[in-house]
Formats: sequence, structure tokens, C-alpha cells
Amino acid sequence: MENKMISLKAVADYLLQNDNYFILTHQYPDGDTLGSAFALCQILQQKGKKAKVLINGNLQPKFSYLSNGVINQEISDPTVISVDVADKQLLGELGIYSNCVELCIDHHSIHKAYANRVHKDATAAATAEIIYNLGCLLNVTFTKTICDCIYTGVATDTGCFKYSNTTLQTHEIAGMMIKYGCDFAQINKSMFDTVSKAHIEIEKLAMETLTYYHSGKCAIMYTNKEMCAKCGATDDDIEGLSTIPRRIEGVMIGITIRQKDKDLYKVSVRTNTGINAADICSRFGGGGHSGAAGCTISGQLENTLKLLSDAAGQALKDKG
Amino acid sequence: MENKMISLKAVADYLLQNDNYFILTHQYPDGDTLGSAFALCQILQQKGKKAKVLINGNLQPKFSYLSNGVINQEISDPTVISVDVADKQLLGELGIYSNCVELCIDHHSIHKAYANRVHKDATAAATAEIIYNLGCLLNVTFTKTICDCIYTGVATDTGCFKYSNTTLQTHEIAGMMIKYGCDFAQINKSMFDTVSKAHIEIEKLAMETLTYYHSGKCAIMYTNKEMCAKCGATDDDIEGLSTIPRRIEGVMIGITIRQKDKDLYKVSVRTNTGINAADICSRFGGGGHSGAAGCTISGQLENTLKLLSDAAGQALKDKG
Repeated sequence: MENKMISLKAVADYLLQNDNYFILTHQYPDGDTLGSAFALCQILQQKGKKAKVLINGNLQPKFSYLSNGVINQEISDPTVISVDVADKQLLGELGIYSNCVELCIDHHSIHKAYANRVHKDATAAATAEIIYNLGCLLNVTFTKTICDCIYTGVATDTGCFKYSNTTLQTHEIAGMMIKYGCDFAQINKSMFDTVSKAHIEIEKLAMETLTYYHSGKCAIMYTNKEMCAKCGATDDDIEGLSTIPRRIEGVMIGITIRQKDKDLYKVSVRTNTGINAADICSRFGGGGHSGAAGCTISGQLENTLKLLSDAAGQALKDKG
Repeated sequence: MENKMISLKAVADYLLQNDNYFILTHQYPDGDTLGSAFALCQILQQKGKKAKVLINGNLQPKFSYLSNGVINQEISDPTVISVDVADKQLLGELGIYSNCVELCIDHHSIHKAYANRVHKDATAAATAEIIYNLGCLLNVTFTKTICDCIYTGVATDTGCFKYSNTTLQTHEIAGMMIKYGCDFAQINKSMFDTVSKAHIEIEKLAMETLTYYHSGKCAIMYTNKEMCAKCGATDDDIEGLSTIPRRIEGVMIGITIRQKDKDLYKVSVRTNTGINAADICSRFGGGGHSGAAGCTISGQLENTLKLLSDAAGQALKDKG
């Protein structure tokens, strides 16, 4: 692998000079990797190229609209490219392609190069922003279906423009997608304002376990297998619970614990400015970002709760 | 009252030609009326004018930062202007000024003119968008504190850019506010991602009452005075509950009921596209918008639930 850093202009030239693209997404595909991939696929098809998106694992039904506008094409002898895949470890079940990625387009600052050519722009809040700029360079027509994809990537990676990674460019691109007719209100309803009935039920049970520690500066809640079984809650239904404890006024450290197996717990830590979530999780062999991190802890629930509240207490003490 | 419709340029000229402004906000002041008023106050002060914001009723603590950057000025013989006040009925405790409003700036399509001069721009998602355009016309410096105000107005009136009223202009203005240094991530955390401990408690109790009707297409939940007392929940703490039922997958009509007094219930109806919430509420003497409306119903809870589920059933039947 050459890992050659190339400009967006060079990306455009490369894509015009080659053909028969496989576009790889990352595992547990989210709105940005899927939106970027399906937008790029349509851009390439519009330029007369053959292209196909390889979805990594299960596509959540809420993302199915992203493939609207994409023509199903048979492709042999593919040119492999990846979008929003920061590390070849994240190729998951597409790992068979990890040594033949010709071009990678990504926005993660922690990108670990694995492709022959890399275009990384860490100033972009989402890879979809880069795809938009690429579409402009290639002078494509921004159809409604392309706009739906780009908007989805940009909106989901910024928490609907809430998070600090949002920039002037993010808003400018979202605004253009709206101008070109993207179905943004419906997309936002589906991405940010829709929960399953099972989610509502598991949330009710999880909320019953909500406990405050350290004068209300830390809040912890948990779910176990019995609770999930009772609600018929899947992994997708549990998604989103992790953001609840930190939302509570005065809470600096919000922790959610989820039973994976007997005496095995998956932990999500969310913190406010000034407390590093990754530091807390690294004590237990985990990691992540300063505001959001995770780890796995073996042992009984009671002990897990004690370990985490102690770690939170230490983090609060260190902050002073 | 002349109710003369004037252009934004005429607004700018008027403001430069006069002085000693009282800026009125609407009752139950929200992010847009307050953000617009405090931004305009700073703009006028920057242009060498005396100006003062009159807050209508209680200022929620979460909005207190909006007055940063505003100089406290003594004003006599005021020129009265209003922002984001669609109807003189909404002047509430500032109603004493209702017959002497020289200029009103508003974005509501349902604006009922009551001022000598009116600048109404219903294409603006928020009055704060108009204030931004006014600031540009007046060639002001967009300080951080002005940007915090304008961003707050724009973000709160669009549900953080989620709702269908959001336009290219909305995003362009939000982007400029970010560029000029507004504290958007902190504002968004405070506006959209923070709830009180009492809110969490009352939400838990309300969720226990959540009931589905009409094959899950309608969901109703309620709070009563005992529940609020148990949680120490105020009106502010209950804010936001009304959006919960409609978020549930498959729910077309989400209804929240809140006991105001013995045998008196305040009802909020939220609907998805295709069902008119105002139509449902108008059966009970209420009203509102197609997606969000309210009414008050007298009688026992059981009967109120029956009336509402019947009305919801009829609306679903009418839709077919």
C-alpha cells in the first residue's frame, strides 16, 4: 500500500480515469458511511461509470431510502474504494478487500491509512461534505436522491448540526441540499424523532434503574438480558439510551451499562466538557473520544457499578 | 394604528431616525422572541441608540445568557417596537403598550397587524433571521453575543434545523453565526440536550400511563397534580413531554394530557403528515397548527381520554 495523500482534484481525476467501482462502507454502517457511499455511487453512475455499494453487515431499515436512485449494476474486476472507513479493522466482513483498496475518502482525524490513495479532510464534519465537494468538482446534477444521501451523512454525523464539529461549510451544504429538494424534514423525523415501541419499553425499565452518585454529578443506568427479553428489545432498540443520563441537569458523567452475557457488561460513558470519557474507559481497557467512550467489564453487576462510580468519582476529583 | 407594511430597508431607516427603544417580547418568551430582542438591542446600542428589552413574564434561567452584551440603559419617552409578537393578545403583561407599538418585526404567517409599521417576512423560519438581515443592512459588527442571540432564535424555532420551515437562508445564517464565533455547541446542549431531574421523574411517571389506541396509530399519556407534586415538577419541567408519544414508530397522533385543576385538563396533540392536529383540537374549542395544536377539556380524566381517543379514531378514519 502506498498510502499516498491526494487532493480532491486528484480524486476526481482518478474516478474519471477508472471504472467498475466497489464502494466499501464501514461495519455497523451509519448515516455518513451509507449516505456518502450511495451519493458517490450515483455521482459515478451519472458520469457513465459502473458502481456498486457494498453494505457492511445489516442495513437498518431506517436507512433503506438511501439506495433510491441507485442502479443495480453487475460488476466484475472491480476498482475498490472506501468511504468514511478510518481503519481497515473497521472493514469488518468486507475485510477481504483490505489489501486492495485503491482509494479511500475519509474525514476522521484518527484515520489510519490502508489504501493506495487517501483523501483525508479532517475539517469536514462528515465524509458526505467531501462527497458534496467532489460532486461540485465533477459538475454533477444534484438530484433529489443524491441530496437525500448527502444531507443524511451531514445531519447524522453532527447530531443534526448540534455538535461542535459543525462548521459554516456544514450549514452551507445542508442549505444547498434543501434548495435542491432533499426531503430533509422526513429524514430528520426518521433519524432523530422516531423510536420503536420496544425502545420505549426498554427505556422505561432502564429509567427505573437510574441512580445518582457524587451529589448528582454522575448518573448510571443499566439494562440486563431479562429486561431486553421482556420488551423484545434488540441492539437497535437499545441504541440511544446512552445519551440519556448525561442530558440531566448537573450530571457531568452519564453512564449506561448493558448486559452482554452472564457477568459481562458493555459500558458507555458520556461526559460534559472538562471530563474525559476516554480516560475513564481506558482504566477498563476501553477507549473512545473525550465526550463519548466505551469499555467492557467482567464481573457481577454490583461490582461493575462500584468500579464505575469509583472511577467517575476519581475523574470528578481530578477535575476539582 | 396604521398597520403600514414596510420593507426591511424602511425598518433600518426608521431605527436610525429615532431613538430610545423599548423592545417588546411575547408572553411565555421563547428563544426566538428573546434572541431577536436582545440581538436587536445590541444592534441599536452599537448604532449609538438607547434600547432596552422588556421581558414578558418570567425569563427561564436557560435563556439568561441572551442578555450578555446588553448595556442596561435608563429610557424615558420610549419608542415602542415589538419582535416576534404575532398578535397584540400575545403581549400579555406588556399589553399596556398594545396601542402604541410604532414598529413590529415578525415572521408569523398568521400575524395580526397591531402596530403603526409592520415588517413581516413569513419566508423567514425565525424572526432572528430578519434581525440578521437587518444587522447586515445596518452594517453592524456581528459580535459573539449578537451571534449567540441570533443563533438561539434560529435554532430554537426550527427544532435545531429539523423542521420543514428550515431553508437555505436558515442554514446560511447559522453558518455565519458559527463563523463569527457563536457558542453554538453549548447553546444546543442547553436548549436541546438538557433536562431537569424533576423532568426525568415526571417523564418516568407519565410514561407509565402511555397507552396505545387504534392499532398503535394513536398514543396518549397524562400527568396529574399528584404526579407533579411527587416529583416537584413545574410547568418548565413538564415542557417537552408533548413530543414523546408522536416519536413512537407507527404513531400518527400523539396526545399528552395534563391536569390543570380538578376535572380540567390541558391537551397537546402532535400529528404526523396527513393528520391535522388543529382539526382534532377545534372539536374541543382549541386550535393551533396542522402538526401541533392544543385545547382544554373539562370533565373527568376517563371521559377526557375517551373523547380524545374517539376524536383521534375519527381523524384516522377520515384519512382512510
